[in-house]
Amino acid sequence: MKLKEIVQYLQGELINSPGDVEISGCAKLDEATNSDISFLANLKYKNLVNTSKAAAIIVSKKLEIDTDIPLIKVNDPYLAFALVLEKLYPQSNAVEEGIASTSVVAESSDIGKNVSIGHNCFIGKNVSIGTQTVIYPNVVVLDDVSIGANCIIYPNVTIREKCVLQNRVILQPGCVIGSDGFGFAPVAGGYKKIPQVGNVILEDDVEIGANTTIDRSTTGSTVIKSGTKLDNLVQIAHNVKIGRNTVIAGLSGVAGSTEIGQSVIAGNTGVMSDTESGKIYFGTPAREHRKQLQIEAALSKLPEMVKKIKRIEKHVQLNVDDGENKK
Amino acid sequence: MKLKEIVQYLQGELINSPGDVEISGCAKLDEATNSDISFLANLKYKNLVNTSKAAAIIVSKKLEIDTDIPLIKVNDPYLAFALVLEKLYPQSNAVEEGIASTSVVAESSDIGKNVSIGHNCFIGKNVSIGTQTVIYPNVVVLDDVSIGANCIIYPNVTIREKCVLQNRVILQPGCVIGSDGFGFAPVAGGYKKIPQVGNVILEDDVEIGANTTIDRSTTGSTVIKSGTKLDNLVQIAHNVKIGRNTVIAGLSGVAGSTEIGQSVIAGNTGVMSDTESGKIYFGTPAREHRKQLQIEAALSKLPEMVKKIKRIEKHVQLNVDDGENKK
Amino acid sequence: MKLKEIVQYLQGELINSPGDVEISGCAKLDEATNSDISFLANLKYKNLVNTSKAAAIIVSKKLEIDTDIPLIKVNDPYLAFALVLEKLYPQSNAVEEGIASTSVVAESSDIGKNVSIGHNCFIGKNVSIGTQTVIYPNVVVLDDVSIGANCIIYPNVTIREKCVLQNRVILQPGCVIGSDGFGFAPVAGGYKKIPQVGNVILEDDVEIGANTTIDRSTTGSTVIKSGTKLDNLVQIAHNVKIGRNTVIAGLSGVAGSTEIGQSVIAGNTGVMSDTESGKIYFGTPAREHRKQLQIEAALSKLPEMVKKIKRIEKHVQLNVDDGENKK
Repeated sequence: MKLKEIVQYLQGELINSPGDVEISGCAKLDEATNSDISFLANLKYKNLVNTSKAAAIIVSKKLEIDTDIPLIKVNDPYLAFALVLEKLYPQSNAVEEGIASTSVVAESSDIGKNVSIGHNCFIGKNVSIGTQTVIYPNVVVLDDVSIGANCIIYPNVTIREKCVLQNRVILQPGCVIGSDGFGFAPVAGGYKKIPQVGNVILEDDVEIGANTTIDRSTTGSTVIKSGTKLDNLVQIAHNVKIGRNTVIAGLSGVAGSTEIGQSVIAGNTGVMSDTESGKIYFGTPAREHRKQLQIEAALSKLPEMVKKIKRIEKHVQLNVDDGENKK
Repeated sequence: MKLKEIVQYLQGELINSPGDVEISGCAKLDEATNSDISFLANLKYKNLVNTSKAAAIIVSKKLEIDTDIPLIKVNDPYLAFALVLEKLYPQSNAVEEGIASTSVVAESSDIGKNVSIGHNCFIGKNVSIGTQTVIYPNVVVLDDVSIGANCIIYPNVTIREKCVLQNRVILQPGCVIGSDGFGFAPVAGGYKKIPQVGNVILEDDVEIGANTTIDRSTTGSTVIKSGTKLDNLVQIAHNVKIGRNTVIAGLSGVAGSTEIGQSVIAGNTGVMSDTESGKIYFGTPAREHRKQLQIEAALSKLPEMVKKIKRIEKHVQLNVDDGENKK
Repeated sequence: MKLKEIVQYLQGELINSPGDVEISGCAKLDEATNSDISFLANLKYKNLVNTSKAAAIIVSKKLEIDTDIPLIKVNDPYLAFALVLEKLYPQSNAVEEGIASTSVVAESSDIGKNVSIGHNCFIGKNVSIGTQTVIYPNVVVLDDVSIGANCIIYPNVTIREKCVLQNRVILQPGCVIGSDGFGFAPVAGGYKKIPQVGNVILEDDVEIGANTTIDRSTTGSTVIKSGTKLDNLVQIAHNVKIGRNTVIAGLSGVAGSTEIGQSVIAGNTGVMSDTESGKIYFGTPAREHRKQLQIEAALSKLPEMVKKIKRIEKHVQLNVDDGENKK
């Protein structure tokens, strides 16, 4: 594919090049060769533009830069890069259509057209799987699960009984959908397990990261609304409701029965109470991102603050005067 | 099942209803229909009672509330709800008794009566499995493992060699029992792996969450005592000992060789030293819960405190007077 | 094996014993019996030496201790203990050589000599596997993966397409190599997935913990350099580069595109920006370990500091005088 064809496909504007060079791949600014397209979305990497060996760099129309490197000017460089990646690296289906010979699919299941089920899978009773869905090897789907169309389920995933995946859901390897919620009633000598009889609903276009876990609801449903993306090693407890187009980064957890509006949750965050839409959260317990960053900045000064307060106390003789210290 | 039969089963007291309504399920206060039982255990949801459409609500005998909604008064509403869930949603065994045709079980293994082993499992040499235990599809049990009676092992679990599960142990999907402890001796040019030749012992009634990992001991055993419950994505390092009836919430970790008394560990907590029985811990590093909450409350004021201290310093002219600053 | 043979093997010096006792195992100081070797590496356990029932204890040549317990004096007791463990507990290969009958290996794959592939595995197209490598049951290796010699891959691991493992790599159960990086471009009404067309490279002697997840790069490679060890439940995001002989403890995460020098990352740490070689990091966001410990120590005093500042303010009448408070 020639550079000028890519420019046309992106409806971008090419400068510093006639566009005749053949493009074979995509790469980061500092790893690109002269047959690669690269991109600049984060201005922190702007200084890499002039040393990049890329055949052309996708940049924002608004970028002001003095360079003789070929640039493709577009409205949204990150999105444009995604489109080029799709074009140059068409995703092939790594699982053959049909049901692999070593997989076991219950007779009562309803498998749609053009479904691919890889080797060593187990599909339980009354499961329905929509058209074009691809299930990689060693996936387990228990009874009464409903999976929509055009889903991709990577290896070693477990989907427990009664859970629902709508359309175009992607499950990265090893994630668990519908494990028991963590509910135990204290009784004499220990705990009694609370049966977890609900399920999990993943709406359209949800993506779940590798080894992430989503607990089924005690009753009713744990719900993740359409367009929401969860990173790896995220823990969603029972009865949680997560709004549309929410993004939760890795190693974050959401406590039971929490409702999350359409938000962004940064990594390593512990969400322990409801969050508001349109906000970014970070920390354990989760705080608004800006507030948490202010706290983190102040924390760096904390050891010195302890010393300062001691000096001030000494100066104002609080240690000897203040009544509260005498208690 | 009629409402009055449920009341009798719970040995509760029914008010505001003759009890003739047919009950078909259980649901949360705000999701219940007129054939559902609901419950109120956490008084924070008390205001939902009068708007609930539930056929009846299980409440504490001690609850004072003005309502004409049918109530079932009991000593422990959460426990009573667990009992009703068990009654109305009897758990069916989703795995057929016997060994599924696609599973491989070593001849030297000792499989008890009425054991169910699902498809695509691998059971190694000299493994013993007690009566009534259910193993879901795609579970791997390596050599010399001992599993007691009435255990439930969900899909994609790995139990490595020599580990011991006593009776009624539940392993949620994807958890790993007996991975190598993280031990490396620094040597010239890198690290030498310390062989991890011990095992893991999970005593009676232990439950382990989805994708949780429990490392085998270097020598001897990593031990989780009876009745203890671990949530999802918990990491237990080698040589750890956890006391009876301990509860550890999701995304928490326990560092190597730590001893945990009968405690409660909140979510997203990093336990880095021994804990005392009867206490609740939270934070990284883990502190007593109340102490940690005080710190969290104070943290919210931290950015302002930095400013306050600056103003105080200016006021008392510490910045110019104090000897320590001149160093 | 007699004690004196072990002493000779370690090139150590035996005191308080003629060395004729037969040794059958290794154990911790407080768990050892009179046929066990034990060791003292951490001086915090020094007081356990005189009450230990061990046949002999491996200690540092430099240790000064008054005891009549048999001691084996060596340069590095931890390393010496590793060597004894290897000697007394030779690791047997739990997987039979060859390809198990229930596994599926694509014809185009290149399987080296003396490779062992356990049951229920799936090995995709154009995969190469080096000599002596052992793959436990229920592992999935997708197309175009390259695995070196003498690797050990435990059960339920997923290695996605195009990833590279060099030699002597160990993957603990359930870990995921090459899941999609977490990249989404905001578009009207939601997010567009950025194709993740890169891979993961694990160099020689890398070990990856149970249920740890390593994302493939958007383009190019996520790289973990030789000798690096990752504990359980660690999350490595896309485009990360980790230096040689780095150690990352459990439940830690490394944010996308971060470069980590040869460092030590403590458990439950969130690395959100590049780290320097030769340093230890801890906390979220990660700080240098010593700095973080100072902050943690100061945090314990924080609730009291809030009170102190109030008292100081009252004392110096800042609350009434200071202009900033009147805003």
